Amino acid sequence: MSSRDVSPNLALDQLVARRRAEGAAIVHLGFGESRLPVFRPLVSRLLEGASRNAYGPVAGSADARAAVAGYFTRRRMPTDADQTVLAPGSKPLLMALQLVLPGDVLLARPSWVTYAPQARLAGKQVFGVPIPDECGGVPEPEALRETIRSARASGHNPRILILTTPDNPTGTVASPALVRELCEIAESEDLLILSDEIYRDIVHDPWRPVLSPAEVVPDRTIVLTGLSKSIALGGWRIGAARFPSGPWGERIRDEVLAVASEIWSTLAGPMQAVAEYVFAEPPEVVRRIAADTRLHGIVANAVHEIMVGAGALCRPPTGGFYVYPDFEPLRERLDWHGVTDSASLQRVLLDDFGVAVLGGHHLGDDPGALRFRAATSMLYGQTAEQREAALYAERPLSLPHIRDELDLLEEKLSVFVSSGVTKGAAVFPAGVR
Amino acid sequence: MSSRDVSPNLALDQLVARRRAEGAAIVHLGFGESRLPVFRPLVSRLLEGASRNAYGPVAGSADARAAVAGYFTRRRMPTDADQTVLAPGSKPLLMALQLVLPGDVLLARPSWVTYAPQARLAGKQVFGVPIPDECGGVPEPEALRETIRSARASGHNPRILILTTPDNPTGTVASPALVRELCEIAESEDLLILSDEIYRDIVHDPWRPVLSPAEVVPDRTIVLTGLSKSIALGGWRIGAARFPSGPWGERIRDEVLAVASEIWSTLAGPMQAVAEYVFAEPPEVVRRIAADTRLHGIVANAVHEIMVGAGALCRPPTGGFYVYPDFEPLRERLDWHGVTDSASLQRVLLDDFGVAVLGGHHLGDDPGALRFRAATSMLYGQTAEQREAALYAERPLSLPHIRDELDLLEEKLSVFVSSGVTKGAAVFPAGVR
Repeated sequence: MSSRDVSPNLALDQLVARRRAEGAAIVHLGFGESRLPVFRPLVSRLLEGASRNAYGPVAGSADARAAVAGYFTRRRMPTDADQTVLAPGSKPLLMALQLVLPGDVLLARPSWVTYAPQARLAGKQVFGVPIPDECGGVPEPEALRETIRSARASGHNPRILILTTPDNPTGTVASPALVRELCEIAESEDLLILSDEIYRDIVHDPWRPVLSPAEVVPDRTIVLTGLSKSIALGGWRIGAARFPSGPWGERIRDEVLAVASEIWSTLAGPMQAVAEYVFAEPPEVVRRIAADTRLHGIVANAVHEIMVGAGALCRPPTGGFYVYPDFEPLRERLDWHGVTDSASLQRVLLDDFGVAVLGGHHLGDDPGALRFRAATSMLYGQTAEQREAALYAERPLSLPHIRDELDLLEEKLSVFVSSGVTKGAAVFPAGVR
Repeated sequence: MSSRDVSPNLALDQLVARRRAEGAAIVHLGFGESRLPVFRPLVSRLLEGASRNAYGPVAGSADARAAVAGYFTRRRMPTDADQTVLAPGSKPLLMALQLVLPGDVLLARPSWVTYAPQARLAGKQVFGVPIPDECGGVPEPEALRETIRSARASGHNPRILILTTPDNPTGTVASPALVRELCEIAESEDLLILSDEIYRDIVHDPWRPVLSPAEVVPDRTIVLTGLSKSIALGGWRIGAARFPSGPWGERIRDEVLAVASEIWSTLAGPMQAVAEYVFAEPPEVVRRIAADTRLHGIVANAVHEIMVGAGALCRPPTGGFYVYPDFEPLRERLDWHGVTDSASLQRVLLDDFGVAVLGGHHLGDDPGALRFRAATSMLYGQTAEQREAALYAERPLSLPHIRDELDLLEEKLSVFVSSGVTKGAAVFPAGVR
């Protein structure tokens, strides 16, 4: 039996919950969840779906699949209902895809915590590729070419390229030009693309262009989405996939359905009623998602400012609800806390400063780097009322409960990055190190 | 990429739905689902759980785990909440267990359609063992010993014994004496037991003793349960597992949680609220499950009578909602329909006689045998009103919509088993064959 751990972000969230219950004051940036209230009309849909206690089709109800098809079609990916499959989250769909698709996996480094463990469960090798300077979620093209070359030279078979845009953990959107370049590589190297677009509707600037690989190389791209992020339904577990049209896409879909039928059967009936409603995107849903997105953008940018103010390098967030600072410029100072890599960075920030973040090593990043992911969506409040207020506030940053958390974060980081200096200055004359 | 099919019972259910939509009159005994209405108080619980849109703990909420622990404790398996894990169905829990437990799998033959495909997904070898004459869901002890011997002799490592009682597909309850004998084998051969007790609360005779292997060899038994069968919630996807207390049990639970965190994250929040309520077994839930069980018993026994009347051998059903007839005594007659094995038996019954059943080959049984599973729970009606009436009827068999289906089934089977004779008699003089 191999030794396995619970997914580190879920484990960290549970740890923070325990410490808070014991009375610890923690600025929690450690969990990639949109902590916003349930959109009320969804409750009626759940109720309407309650009578669906029969198993129903593995792929989802005809209506739910039609709604998902419409969702993709409105995003320049013309889709028939038959090309879609619903599931309890996009996570099981990604797992099923890794089980049925041939070849090893190419992954942006850093990337979401679950891609690599799933690949290992499916018996695949994972090749991490550094991300470009301007954004995350996608590999830097030249590094990707080089990784493919060397992987093949060592007898491996890299075939699956996972792209995430907007991405987790850097909170950035890849440019259409970059997506096109990666699609060209996919063509020339015969790669299949898993395009994880679960953050697709959380682009801070509504006019920023988003290009799906499925628009460029539709025959070799499978798109994943879900309702966990855009409309804050993580705990309801609703995801969907879009398969290419044509025989290859049908075959992959059928294989995924076969795996689905043996692992999870189907998305729960009441949740299918919810999916039918949300994926159809009536105006009130569009407005709610826009409100969520606005809040995510405002708070992510405020945290970005704090990180940069503390002396970190950090890509400006453009999508999702994350920032991914790099404390490399402060390496010498942080050494005085015993912070020498991302594991010690995460540990010291949590234990000594009460700031919960996810070290970059958990996301496949270089363990020696001083990087972490801060999930800014955890700052909206600790009660339902606070979160509701955050969502509909004209100026969310002026709300005391958000302002206080941001101020606390700023203060904690300021002590964190300066206390090293003080300590260091007391021991060594300036310039020695 | 290996070729995979959708789980055959789900596929058959979808086929029947399509044919019925095209106007075909089909007696549908092909799908292992309790087609009864949602218990109304569950709808309020779902609603109460609607605000749970955060991910929550992978294992389930503290309250849900406490309720599951109470459920098992009331069944002579003292259980702490920490020993339990909830999931979207028992199916993903079984999959996770197959992924983390070492060794190959020993399986009753026939058994539920999903055990073997899951074992193959986990890279395991499956060894089917014939069932005893008196019941299914468990291997015949001497055949089990022999299978273990020969598997080891051929270099395999059979370590996991899956038991199902009451069982699917034979609809029978293993006797305590038999369970004890199998537990002794598990001890002497160092097997781990996965005890699938999802039909546990559907024992037709309330006084019939049911013994869990977890009562006999608690340290080597993991128990699975769920709400799909006993309270007709297949489409809501709620399952749970009970792990042994002590270090080994904790390790297996932790490994299952690790896999869970990478495949399905957690049971949907609203469903956890439902689980908290049902597993706590308030009196109205107990009454509802008793009503379901009574109906399952009455109709299963009526179908058993029809099967025996048609000339099949069939174990009398004592639990669940299945019968598993063997048409071997009629092999010569059925040959005239082109029925020579369970695949042709299933096909001819559906295509020529409008009776949907699941051939024994799908359940791992000898493909040459003339056996199938009839899911009697599909006979309660095609509308919600009919099913509601069935559930609360004093004499369900007198309800016209059930009586008519049973009469139709009897008539179809009677023609099926006699038409061969007629056809044969027309071609050959009596006695030639």
